[in-house]
Order: sequence, then structure tokens, then C-alpha cells
Amino acid sequence: MAKKRAGKKTTRKASKRTPKKTPTKPARKPGSKKVTRKAPSARGKMHTGKSRRRPTVKATSRKKAARKSGPRPKRVVPGKRIYAFGKKTEGDRSMSDVLGGKGANLAEMTSIGLPVPPGFTITVGTCAEYHAAGRKLPADLMKQVADQIVSLEKQRGRAFGDAGDPLLVSVRSGAAVSMPGMMDTILNLGLNDKSAEGLAERTGNERFAYDAYRRLIAMFGDVVMGIDMHHFERELDGVKAGYGVSLDTDVPAEGLRELCERSKAVFRERSGRAFPQKPMVQLEMAIRAVFDSWMSDKAVSFRRIEGVTGIDGTACSVQSMVFGNTGDDSGTGVAFTRDPSTGENTFFGEFLINAQGEDVVAGVRTPRPISELKAWNKGVHAQLLGIKRTLERHTREMQDIEFTVERGELFMLQTRTGKRTGAAAVRVACDMVREKLITEKEALLRIPAGDLTQLLLPRFDDAARAGADVLATGLPASPGAASGFPAFTASEAVDRAHAGEKVILVRRETSPEDVDGMHVAAGVLTSTGGMTSHAAVVARGWGKCCVAGAGDIHIDEHNGVFMVGGRAFGRTDLISIDGSTGEVIAGPVATVEPELSGDFARVMRWADKHRTLGVRTNADTPRDAERARSFGAEGIGLTRTEHMFFDAERIGAMREMILADNRVDRESALGRLLPYQRADFVGIFTAMKGLPVTIRLLDPPLHEFLPHEDDAVEELARSMGVDAGVIRRRVTMLGESNPMLGHRGCRLAVTYPEILAMQVRAIVEAALDCAEQRIRAVPEIMIPLVGVDEELAILRAQAERVIEQVRKERGSRRRLDIKIGTMIEVPRAAVTSEQIARHADFFSYGTNDLTQMTFGYSRDDVNRFLPDYIAHEIIPRDPFQSIDRAGVGEMVRLSVEGGRLGNPGIKLGICGEHGGDPASVRFCHEAGLDYVSCSPFRVPIARLAAAQAAILARTAEPG
Amino acid sequence: MAKKRAGKKTTRKASKRTPKKTPTKPARKPGSKKVTRKAPSARGKMHTGKSRRRPTVKATSRKKAARKSGPRPKRVVPGKRIYAFGKKTEGDRSMSDVLGGKGANLAEMTSIGLPVPPGFTITVGTCAEYHAAGRKLPADLMKQVADQIVSLEKQRGRAFGDAGDPLLVSVRSGAAVSMPGMMDTILNLGLNDKSAEGLAERTGNERFAYDAYRRLIAMFGDVVMGIDMHHFERELDGVKAGYGVSLDTDVPAEGLRELCERSKAVFRERSGRAFPQKPMVQLEMAIRAVFDSWMSDKAVSFRRIEGVTGIDGTACSVQSMVFGNTGDDSGTGVAFTRDPSTGENTFFGEFLINAQGEDVVAGVRTPRPISELKAWNKGVHAQLLGIKRTLERHTREMQDIEFTVERGELFMLQTRTGKRTGAAAVRVACDMVREKLITEKEALLRIPAGDLTQLLLPRFDDAARAGADVLATGLPASPGAASGFPAFTASEAVDRAHAGEKVILVRRETSPEDVDGMHVAAGVLTSTGGMTSHAAVVARGWGKCCVAGAGDIHIDEHNGVFMVGGRAFGRTDLISIDGSTGEVIAGPVATVEPELSGDFARVMRWADKHRTLGVRTNADTPRDAERARSFGAEGIGLTRTEHMFFDAERIGAMREMILADNRVDRESALGRLLPYQRADFVGIFTAMKGLPVTIRLLDPPLHEFLPHEDDAVEELARSMGVDAGVIRRRVTMLGESNPMLGHRGCRLAVTYPEILAMQVRAIVEAALDCAEQRIRAVPEIMIPLVGVDEELAILRAQAERVIEQVRKERGSRRRLDIKIGTMIEVPRAAVTSEQIARHADFFSYGTNDLTQMTFGYSRDDVNRFLPDYIAHEIIPRDPFQSIDRAGVGEMVRLSVEGGRLGNPGIKLGICGEHGGDPASVRFCHEAGLDYVSCSPFRVPIARLAAAQAAILARTAEPG
Repeated sequence: MAKKRAGKKTTRKASKRTPKKTPTKPARKPGSKKVTRKAPSARGKMHTGKSRRRPTVKATSRKKAARKSGPRPKRVVPGKRIYAFGKKTEGDRSMSDVLGGKGANLAEMTSIGLPVPPGFTITVGTCAEYHAAGRKLPADLMKQVADQIVSLEKQRGRAFGDAGDPLLVSVRSGAAVSMPGMMDTILNLGLNDKSAEGLAERTGNERFAYDAYRRLIAMFGDVVMGIDMHHFERELDGVKAGYGVSLDTDVPAEGLRELCERSKAVFRERSGRAFPQKPMVQLEMAIRAVFDSWMSDKAVSFRRIEGVTGIDGTACSVQSMVFGNTGDDSGTGVAFTRDPSTGENTFFGEFLINAQGEDVVAGVRTPRPISELKAWNKGVHAQLLGIKRTLERHTREMQDIEFTVERGELFMLQTRTGKRTGAAAVRVACDMVREKLITEKEALLRIPAGDLTQLLLPRFDDAARAGADVLATGLPASPGAASGFPAFTASEAVDRAHAGEKVILVRRETSPEDVDGMHVAAGVLTSTGGMTSHAAVVARGWGKCCVAGAGDIHIDEHNGVFMVGGRAFGRTDLISIDGSTGEVIAGPVATVEPELSGDFARVMRWADKHRTLGVRTNADTPRDAERARSFGAEGIGLTRTEHMFFDAERIGAMREMILADNRVDRESALGRLLPYQRADFVGIFTAMKGLPVTIRLLDPPLHEFLPHEDDAVEELARSMGVDAGVIRRRVTMLGESNPMLGHRGCRLAVTYPEILAMQVRAIVEAALDCAEQRIRAVPEIMIPLVGVDEELAILRAQAERVIEQVRKERGSRRRLDIKIGTMIEVPRAAVTSEQIARHADFFSYGTNDLTQMTFGYSRDDVNRFLPDYIAHEIIPRDPFQSIDRAGVGEMVRLSVEGGRLGNPGIKLGICGEHGGDPASVRFCHEAGLDYVSCSPFRVPIARLAAAQAAILARTAEPG
Repeated sequence: MAKKRAGKKTTRKASKRTPKKTPTKPARKPGSKKVTRKAPSARGKMHTGKSRRRPTVKATSRKKAARKSGPRPKRVVPGKRIYAFGKKTEGDRSMSDVLGGKGANLAEMTSIGLPVPPGFTITVGTCAEYHAAGRKLPADLMKQVADQIVSLEKQRGRAFGDAGDPLLVSVRSGAAVSMPGMMDTILNLGLNDKSAEGLAERTGNERFAYDAYRRLIAMFGDVVMGIDMHHFERELDGVKAGYGVSLDTDVPAEGLRELCERSKAVFRERSGRAFPQKPMVQLEMAIRAVFDSWMSDKAVSFRRIEGVTGIDGTACSVQSMVFGNTGDDSGTGVAFTRDPSTGENTFFGEFLINAQGEDVVAGVRTPRPISELKAWNKGVHAQLLGIKRTLERHTREMQDIEFTVERGELFMLQTRTGKRTGAAAVRVACDMVREKLITEKEALLRIPAGDLTQLLLPRFDDAARAGADVLATGLPASPGAASGFPAFTASEAVDRAHAGEKVILVRRETSPEDVDGMHVAAGVLTSTGGMTSHAAVVARGWGKCCVAGAGDIHIDEHNGVFMVGGRAFGRTDLISIDGSTGEVIAGPVATVEPELSGDFARVMRWADKHRTLGVRTNADTPRDAERARSFGAEGIGLTRTEHMFFDAERIGAMREMILADNRVDRESALGRLLPYQRADFVGIFTAMKGLPVTIRLLDPPLHEFLPHEDDAVEELARSMGVDAGVIRRRVTMLGESNPMLGHRGCRLAVTYPEILAMQVRAIVEAALDCAEQRIRAVPEIMIPLVGVDEELAILRAQAERVIEQVRKERGSRRRLDIKIGTMIEVPRAAVTSEQIARHADFFSYGTNDLTQMTFGYSRDDVNRFLPDYIAHEIIPRDPFQSIDRAGVGEMVRLSVEGGRLGNPGIKLGICGEHGGDPASVRFCHEAGLDYVSCSPFRVPIARLAAAQAAILARTAEPG
């Protein structure tokens, strides 16, 4: 059942998805543990008889691709019911209307010369005939099928139902569009009591033969006779219990024989008839089951709901099976046409002699590197090298292939685009351009933009990490790798780092009070919080390695120790964290620094040529600003000013400002903050010289700056010369039930205009200071959290007054052209953008908060239910990581439309976390934004993603 | 400056506002202290010389109204520059293009026979000529003006500039549309050194004469010469200091004489010329100033921004002034044409002999009732009765008039629609229909729907409350009146109420844990929280009197006492609260129960005839349901199920359910809750027999049900047989940073499907139980907080399974037609309504939460800044009280559009607090909803408001 549901889902998604090939990787569920990003090894990927499930979307993609590649001679013969593939191949990939997606694909693979196990496909039209005739197969169909079987027997040199060396086949459904409720695969069809015996003898592998047979009985019982699979599973459990084993693989051959008998008994009992021993009877029943499944309730309702029309039925493909465990002249292997780790153009893989894929999965035997294949079978080796060339020429992509050698004969079981590391993606793309296999644009589309981060950050040395003592796995919150000694509070981290120690900040979760500690730490590890927790967001912004939400770790801050798996780690126990995998490792692991290849620079050049979206960065310090410039940022889209107030020297003045109960005291405290702010801005303007810098005025609720712990409260009370009780009361008063929806953003500026005045003054004074040193400063003032046009009108006027005042004070004759705009992050702002735009020079979409308010999800609390939501596929992915097009995206679209109506010259950007997510960048391009802004380390990703979006959009244009 | 800004605002709003007459009262700022709703008294409303500022929108309205009333003979004479009003009247209200709004109005009032002080209006065209000629008055204009002055002198029997008995005039600007930057009024024009002396002598009131003179000098200096008003104010301060007085009214006549001299000195110094002594010079300068103000920067930019075109200039009205303090044959008064308190058709008002309006404002003398007027001046009395008839026939409305008698001659200074109580509104409207003055539809439009509440609730006896000891004033959170003894906790309230005591629950704020106590209390008083706080919402729902946010009250729950103004009130100190005024009063006050008049029933009948919107109620108990039915509710639009779990018997099981860490324990606790829930629903279905009942499944975050105080935690721990620490940990774990955006609503049902299953089972079993007793039950299941279509799809399927299962269990052959729908309260749901509607039989707009999330305002925290926002006019009113059309309304419109696309048969309603707010009901009508749902006591309001909306919409239809 679970399997079917999953299947259903995949298919539904598939039919909704844009059928264009996208460079994005298959969606990985956020929150789920990420697989180590080392080069995919061939290990654990070898199958033989087992079908490797292929996302059903592929059929559709391929079909569309075929359509695009222009007219090809169709070989559709009217009235023809069966198309063979093998020695003689009668179809190609253009014929999915006739042969279904799978059938057309098998025909295509065969037709380009791959040695695919031969078979044939019964057409979609036959299925339609079957139903039109009241579930009656056309009179001569089984005769034609028998003829095809004869052809297969000839090609494979063995007979269907042969007692000694039987021909076995698989039977699969396959419409032009995949859909849930359709029949699954039946494997090993053709086996019966006798031929199972024969197969055991011929392969010398009794376990294999009876395992194949018992699987056939169960699959056949399930999909053809509708006997629930669990009846068969219960028998397996019974047998295992009988032999006192717990793993399927430990059941001896004898047990599998017994299981076949018991399965046949279940079959008889549940279906009222014996398991059919005649292969042709099995085959006819299977074909009927395929056709019947077209009209299953599930399939019918799927077509109704999804509006699938114009498809008459499903095709049915019958393919001969091959086995790699039929002797020492047989084997099985997996390979990549290029090195998936480095991208080097070399043949890369592993193989096993006299083995089925399962043997590899079971880990019983160690595969041999593909380089040794030549010594074993020179012909097969040469043939594979030829296939590599053919495939790459045909698919123009690096391929990941599975093959089986049966009695010296090579068969291709599977070929698909190979997964690769970011570095390999860059190299393969550039190499293929050089080899004139693909164009520059195609090369850009081939590189998963998100994988570029891997090229920019240090990572653990593969050799060094082998056999690492992995303590726990959290979320890969911010890539990179670091080793250090645990520090349990921010101040401890600061002290020890200043003393020269390399520390990892280990916290349950972090808050703005921790930023200093985070800044000095080599990495950050938290035990709670998700991919968009404070720790994750801040760390990503800095390109600092972070593992978040490692729930197995229990932190005892008081005693300076964390527990994991019964072991304790204190301040002197070196640990390592891998922000790309989420792993927490005991002890040190050597890291390697990235070297940016010439190919990387080439890809970036190409990207800049094609993209139309600007790319800015989110940076709060000169260091970040410089780094982002070096990565190609064209300005700063978001400078948060709140982090600037946590410095030890400033937080005191900040707190006094907050705790002041009158304007005069507030202004005096603000006066002390002014020089710091001015210096902050001078630093950033200098780093970005000439490029625009968007500065967001103070945003978080004021209580975030207040101390909550008793010590800190008392210290503050002493320094302010008041009673600790006074401070505590004020802290309590400032507390809010829902701070996310509270007194923050521009609402602070409305209540305390003097805060805005100080910040604007600091900006203007900094710009004028820079001008005096002939550094061009281009500040843009961003007023956050506007929801009502009048907020912006009033605050803009206030800011303009301060700008004018400072200009006069400084006697500057220059006109200060400082743009003033707002973040669009409140749903009301999105739907009233036309009004708001009249007062704004720019909008920047703050999609983090916009996502919170559009969904009504608190980012701090959402992990209570979001994992369930993603697991149940209520929402396809974490909307804080990749923009929710239907909801949040719709808000942005409404706002873009309104904004441009209200102010045709308005500049539109995005500065939420989404600005560095490739799918979201694509959305931004489509929505017509002017730029995206993201953390420094994601700038190259955004540049590439922007280029991909532009190329895809142009491709999609009509004509 | 402040005044001008306010003026600007009014006007901008005005020009945007729909110019139709609406029955709503002038917007009162929510959150501001509400004025006592007793019948408006004539006290403090008397003016004479002082112009009563009229919202500038009136001019526009009247103009449009004039246009609507069809063609009237225009008396526009080409080339004519001056139109008189008085003995001979040359214009009417249709001529605002020529005479400006004010001029046309004065002409109209005169032309229907009102004794308006005579005057004349210089045309808009003259202003255009003036500017076309380069700011030159037409050659003979001042000659014509002089002729008019002569006419005025004749009519008033005194001469312009006469030293003994001077004719004085006012000069005002007046375009067809009012705009900021235009000249304000100049009063007392014509006074000079000599005539001031004469006026003093003739009136025997030196203070009056010199006060009038010094005001003329200052006004003239300000608006004609551009001398900033503060220069004159400084002189006044100087004089006051000289006499050692602090109030203007304490300055003796001598001081005012001195002030005139000092003001003239300022005038000379600042303008370089002496204050003009010749009245005709004053007049010409004033006319020029009026014309010049048309081209002031402000006025020009206002016209540009607002796109005012097609108006050539401003008119200038010159009107003779009258004085009621010229002897014992003079006087001044204020009256209503009907009793504003009861609506009785009688003449009602007060007057003062030999007095100016200012005398009344100063409170020096006590006015006499209008009934004594006849004895003083029979002729004037008869004339006023005639004017009452004329005015009511002409305006077809009850009028509020101001008059002055100067030397026995009656002058009308002002007439406008009179304010009245809800009861009076109903009676006047019905009476006027009987008198055939207005139609039924007009009658419906005349009654401010919101005022109907006054008719339904007990109120304090006016006599009894006179001289009441008002301790504090909070927000009028839920109307009604109650006296009782303070109870400081819910359980205390329950105990004491059960013991027969009448209690007022006094809390800082209330939470769901307090509902029992609220229910038994006679009224609820809180010291924090707004109009939509928990206390306010729950109390309004029950029609229970509540005063919220009485910030002056400091509650010491521990000692059972509250402090206010230095006084302490404990459990034995009787207090009274007035939920219609927000007043908290020491001691008891007698209340009167409302009697519903036949007129009330008549109005409701008329309303039902005209409205198209359905009206349902929000009710959680059979009692509320019955009451709402008696008020005309056509079903229940919202039954909240959460309140049902706070009963002492149930809360235990509820808590065990929440604290269970596995499904089995959860289901067992739910099993114990099931019979209670079923009984709840049987009760409500029985009360509503046959009418639909929309039941919302559990909505609040679970931690709301948990105890937070130590005692309660320990008690729970004992009853559950676990350690208190376990409970505390679980309570902490369930806490959220932003509960508003947390794990609640349908998110609970996704994580704990068994809660939904129990509730649906209870609903279905209750419906079947009712059916057995031949009571028709029409439940509708509402799944709250849906933001993603898939949530509803999954939960709907679950609910349907339970419905089917219960039906089978009970062997019911009936098809249970239970509608399943959702609340639209998350912005994402609004913008993805098309998808969601595919799974919904109905939508109900939960505009409370939708407002929170659309604005990003937490209702619990919003009082930090909302008062500032309303004070600064950033938003016009509390969006939780009246729907925000531009933002939240836009969300609803988007959703209605999408919802009907996704499911053309979908039913749409609203169940937020807005369902009982007249302006919001109108919005709902316009947005095309099917029904509104509101608390029982607001059902009549909603019925009337719905009728008004329908009538207005039909009127607005083209053709």
C-alpha cells in the first residue's frame, strides 16, 4: 500500500510539473537527513533482475523532448498491434502515443544500438480495443504474442517454459502518461515448478531460482489476482521463524522452496485456482491485468481529477530477462561515463563476476573496479567503451549505466543521467562545450546551481573522513566543514577564541545575543531548530559551517558538556562538524580548501552574459561585503542593522535607549550609538565603493536586545544605576504574546521616530564622510515591515527631513540622491502595493516573513508540524527554503503588478533567504524582479540560477 | 499648523469618499474613549458669532445631491458677478459651480424661507477673471460690492463702519470642492477703533466688543497679511501675564483693549502698514486674499495631486453678523426638531437671553428650556415652530438648529441633521414614514444599524446615574450595564455566584480558562486588552456587559482588591460597569430593562424584506442559539467547540488527552470526552431545529487547555498519577514563540487525526440522536485554519470516513448530507481559494485571524502601537472592529473570485467579529457573500445593515 501511495504521488506531481528538463536535482525533502555529498560510488547500486524504479516523469519529459527535436519519420503502421525491439526494432521514442512511455523508450534505446534485452510492446490501441469489446482481447492477439515469444526465444537462445533453461520475461504497463492505479511490474514470468528446478540447476544457485519463483507467485498473486501482498509476506515470516532467522537473505534454499509451496497454497486458497503453470497462460493473464488496470478506480479518478484526456489506454511491454549469475562468464556492473567526483572524462565504475545486483546490496562480495573488466572480458570492455561514446553522443549527457553480462553477452539494463558533484558538473559541462557536444546555454542548464557552494567552501578530506566516528546527524544548515573544541555560551566562545582556541559553538538554539560567539567560532552546532533557524540563517549569511537541530545531542550548558549516545563531550574534546551533510564527528578531520578552477570562472562569465536579473548580496559587515563582491555581487540588497548593536560596547547604550521612559533619555542613548553606526556604514560603503547598499532600519522587537538572565539583568541595573526590579518589569512589559506579529519594523519608527532619525543620520553622515575621501557611497534606505501606505509616507518624510538637515549642517552642496523604499513582507503590503509604491523608490521582497505571514507559520515553531506536512505531502517542500509559488509567489506577483502600476519606475528585488535558492531565483526572473539578493556564498549560485532562468524563459517563448 | 494639517486630512479623505449619504455615524476612532450615549443635550453647543466648522465633504455631498434631485431652474445670469441672499435671493443649491459650496448653501437656506443673516456671494468666475487679469479685480467689482453693502445696511438697519452701531460681516472662501490652503474665515470685519468703542457701548459689553476686535486684527493679520498667528498669541500671553490670569476669559475688558493696541502694533511691525481702519478697505483686502488663496502652493498642489479639474476658482461669501448679546431682547439657543432621546415629535432645546454662545461654553449661566421661549418672545417661538416644519419638510430629516435673536429678530445660524439615540432613530424613522415624509427604504437608511444594540440591552437609569461616582473609564467592550461585587478569579466568581452573589469578574485580562467565571458573572471588567481582547469577544458573544482595558485600575488578585485613584475596592465593595460607555462606577446604579417597541419589529420586518444577505449567529450554547433565533438568526455560522472543554468535568480528560504521549492513551481520553460533545451538539441542534449549524473543529493550540499555575499543575499530576515535573516539562514543550502562528487549527487534526475523528463522531451521533426524536439537525463541519488545499482534501476524506462509519454502525439508511467546508483565515488560503474550493462545500471568512495575518498584527499585542497608528491617521480605524477594505477586504475579494471559480456552488459567509459591524456587513454584501454571522445581540444590527447595503447597492446601480 505504502508503495502504491508513493507511486501515485510521484505521478501526480509529474503530470503537473513543467515538462522541460531542468537543471535542478530531484527534490530532496528538507528536514530529512541529507546524503553525504561525496562522489556517488558504484557500491550498493547494482541490480540485475530487479527493475530500478524510474521516476515516471521521465517518460513524459522524453516524449516532449522528442516532440521538440522536430519531425522524425514515424513508423506507426495502422492496425499493427505489436512492435518488437531487439534484433528488429519497430518503434522509437516519438511513438509514446502508441507504445506508451516505457515502450517508446525501450524501442529508442534499442534503435541507437544498445544491447537491450529484447522484447515487444502491445500497443495502446489494443488496450482500447480490449475495453471497447467488453474486456475481450482481439481474437488473434495471443497468437501474435506467441509469435513474438518465438522471436525472443530465438534471440535469447532459450525457450519460454523450458524446464532446463527457461526464457523469463517481465511484463509492465505503460501509458503515454504515468498514473497511479496502473499495474506494476511482474518479473520472472515464465517460471513454474519445473523451470524453477531447471534454473536452479543451470545457474547452480538454488536460492536464486526459488527466490525468483516465490517472488513471481507473490507478484502475480498481488497484481493479477488481487491477493493482498501481506498474505505472502506472512508466509515468508513463517518460514523465517521456522529457520530461526531474521533476515530474508539468511533463509536457506530449502526454505525458499518451502516458501514457494506455501505461496502457491495461499494463491490457491485466496484466488480459488492454482498458480498457473503454463507460461503462456501466465502471460495472457498478465496482459489482461495490465489492460484492466487502465480502468481501475484509482486510474479513472486520477484521469478525471487531473484532466488527462486524449489517451486511449495503456501499452503493455514484455521484455526478456537476463541474469548475471549464470556462471563465471556472467556478471553485473554499474558505471559512469565520466568521473562523477571530478568530472574527468574517463570510464568509471565497478563490476562483480557471477553475481546478481542483490549480492552487492547484501554486501556479501566486494565489487572490482571497472579497470579490471578488460582483463576479464576484453570484448565486453570494448563494447562498453563504444556504448559510452554512443550514449554520450546520443544523450549529450554523462550517463550512469547498469549492465549485465549473461554467458559472455552484454546487456544494458538501464541508462540515465549520472549524478555528480558540483565540481564534476562544472567540469563536465565545460568539457562538453569544448567537445562540441553541447552549447554554452546547455552547459549552463546542466549545472545544478545549488551545488556550486561545494566549490567555494572548505570540505573534509574524503580520505580523512573515511571511518569517521559519526556521533549524530543534524540538518546540513550551512555548508562547509570545521573542527574545534566545544564552547557552550557565546561569551565563552569569544573569550576562548580571543585566547587563540578554535571553538565550535554548541547551543540548544541561538539568538541574536549569540552572534558575537557565532562570529568567532569555527562552526555552530545546535540541537534544535531547522534549516531556517537563527543559527542556520546567520551562519549561511557568513558562509560559516553550521549543523542545526542535531536532536540526539543533549547539551548541559551549566556543566559545559554535551551527551550523545551515552558519551560525554566537554570543552577539551575536539569535534568536527560537516555543514554539507549535517554530521557531527568525534575528533578532528582534515579539511581541504577549495580551489576555484578556470572552468568555474568560465561558467560564471557565461552566466553573466545570459542573465538579466541583478545579483546582490545580504551583508552586514565590510568583510562579508568584500567577500560577496569577490563572488560577483553587484551591490548589497540587505544590510541588517540589528546585529550591529550586539557588540559589548554598544549593547549597553542600546539597552539604555530601550529602557528609557522618555524621549530625552532615549535620544541621549541614541547619541552614543550614532558614531558606531556611522563607522559601520563607512566600512560597508568603502567595501562596496560605488555599488548600491540597501540598509534596512532597525527591525526586531526591542526586547530581543534586553538581557533575560538574572546576572545580565543585575549587571545592567548596576550600570544604569537603577533597581534590578525596574529592569525586570520593563523586560516583562516589552514581552509579547506573538513577537513575530508585534511591535517591530517600521512600527518602532512610528512610536520612536528618534531611532529612525539616528540611523538615517548615521547613513547620511557616513556617505558624506566617504565622499570627502573620494569614495562614492550609494546608500538606499529600506523601511521594514510596512503594511499600510501611510506608514511609508510618514516615515519617508521623516527620513527626508533628516537627510536634508544633515546635508545643511555639513554644508554639502551636493544633492544627496538617497533612494528610500520598503520591504514587502506583510501580506497587506502585497495586496496594497499600488498605494505603497507611490511612496517607494524600491520594493524588496522579504520572503522569509512574507512566508510566515502568508502561511500563518511561525518559523520558530513550525517544526512541530512541518515535518509531518512534508511527509504527508501536504506541502511539497519547506516553503522557507524554496518559495511557495502558489501562495507566497502569488502575493509577490500581485505586488509586482500593483507596484509597477503605482510607480512605473520602481525597482524590485528580493532579499529573503529565497534569493539564494535556484528554484526561487527562477521564480523571481519569471515574476519580473530586477534583482535577487542572497548571502555571499550563494552569490555564484544566484548568478548561475539567474542565467538558467533567463535561458529557460527564452526557450519557452512562443515561436 | 496642526489645525491646517487636520484640515487637509479631512478634505483629502472627503474627496475620496463616496459622496452618497450613508446612514453610518461619523467615524469615531476606536480605542478612544466613547462619549456617553445619552441623548445629546443642548448644553455646550451654543455659538453665535463663531463659525461652526463643518466637514468640508458636506459641500460636495450637497452638490451631488442637488444634481441628483433633477433639473431645477438655474438662475445663473451670464456676466453677473454678485448674487445676494437675504430679502432678495438670487441663487440656490444647484449653483455651487457659480457660488461655491458655501454660497450655494446659504442661498438655498434663504430661499426656503429661513431667516439667515443676509449677505452676498462673489462668483467663482470673478476669481477666474481676477487671476486672468494678473491678480486685478474687475474694474467695477468694488462698486458692486459697495452696492451690496448698502443693501445689507438697509436690511440690518445699521451701517458698515458706523461708529455707534456698526454692521459687521464675515468673509469666507468657498469653491465647489473644498481644499486645503484656501483662506479661512474672517469674522467681525468692519470693526475699527471707533466702532469697537461704539459696539461696547451699545451692547454694554466692553469685553465682548474688544475681544471681537482683537480677534479681527489677528485673523486679518494672519490670513490677509500672512503674519504668523503666534505673534498675536504671544501678545495675549503677555497681557495675561500682566494681569496675572491664566484663562483667556479672565482677562478684563481693559486688558482686551490693551491687547487690541498691542495687536495693531504687531500688525504694523510685521506688515509694514497699519491695521486698516476703513471697513471697505478691509473688505477689499479680504476679498483679494480669498482669491489669492486659490493659487496658494498648497491649494495648487492639492488640485494637482487629487486631479481636481474643471473648477475655475473660488467664490467669496460676505455675510452680515448677528449678536445675541445686544440686550434683553436678544438671545441665543439650540434646538432639535424632535426629541433626540426618545424620537418623540416635539420641539426640544434650550436658550439663553442676552448671551453669546461663548457664555454657554464658559458655563457661566444655565440655559432655559425651549418651552419657556414662548413666554419670552411669542413671535420668535411661533416663527421657530414654523421653521421646524419647513426644515423637516425640506430636509425630510430631524434637524439640530442654532439660532440667535438680535433685538427681537430671529436668525438661523446653522441647521444640520440631528444626532439621536438608537431608540429615537427607530421612532423618528417610523414616524416619518407614517407622516409620508420618507419611504420605507429611506427609513431603513436613516437608522444607524450599530445603535440598535442600545435597544436590546439593559442600561443604567439616566436619573440614577446622574452624579455617579465614576472611578475610571475603559473601553466600551460589550454593551449593557451591570452592578455586582468584585471577584478576582474565575473559580471565585463561580463559587460566589453559585452561592447567590451577584459578581463582576475583575481580571487583568481573561483567557479561555476564565470562561466559566465570565459566564456566571453579571459583567466583566479588565485592566488591559482592547475591543477585541478575549474578554471583549466572549462577552459580546454572550451579550454580557464588559468594560475592557480600564488601565487606571490596578488589580491585586492575591489580596482580592483593586486600586483606582488611590482608593481600594475589595470583595464587599459594590461596583457598577457600563459596557456602552466604558465607565466603572462606585456603588450600585439602577438599571432599566429594554422594551422592544412595535417600531423595532416594524424596522426588522422592513429590513428582512430588502436584504439579500443571510444572517446567522455565532453561538456555542443552546441558550445563545435560542436567543439568536429570537433575534432573527437564520442559522449558526460558527459554533466554537473549544469553550466546551473547560467545564470542570471535562478539562481533566482534555488535559490527559493532550499530555498523552501515544495514540492509545489519547483515544481513551477522547472517548471520555465524546458523550459530552455529543450532548453539546444535541442541545444546539435542538435549539436551532432545522436551521443549519456550522461547527468548527478544535482550533486553539493545545497548551491553552493546560494549567500554568503550580497548584493546578500539581493537582493534575496527582489526578493523572504522574510527577508534576512531567506535566511541567510537557507544558513547556507545548509552549510556542508565536502561538498565533503555531500548532493549531487543522494542523492539530493533521497531527492528531483522532481528535477530528472524535468530534466528527460526536456531531454525527448527535444528528442521528436528534433524528430519532424527529428533530431535524443540519450540521456543517468547518475545518479551521486551512492554508493549503491538500490539508482540506485529507481532513475532509477523514471526516467523510467517520461519517460513513457512524452511519453504518447506527444502521441508518438515511443519507447524511453533512456539508464540509473551511474557514478562510490564512492569507495563503485567500490567494489559493480556487484550489481549496474544490474540496469545500462552503467558506467562512474568519476575518479576525485574517486581519491578524494580513496586517501582521497580533491582537494580543497590537495595543502597543495601534492607538498611535489611529491617532496619526496611519490607519483610519481599528481593523479588528471594522473590516479593512483595502487589505483584508482585497483578500476576501480575491478569495470569493477564486472560490467561485473552483466551485461555482460554494456557499460563502463570514464569521469573524466583523459580521456584526454595519460597515463590514455592507462590504460583505458588495463582495457577494451569501451570509454574515455575528454574536446574538448583533443579529438585528446585521439584519438592518444588510438591508441598507442592499438598498444602497441598488441605488448605485446604473440606470
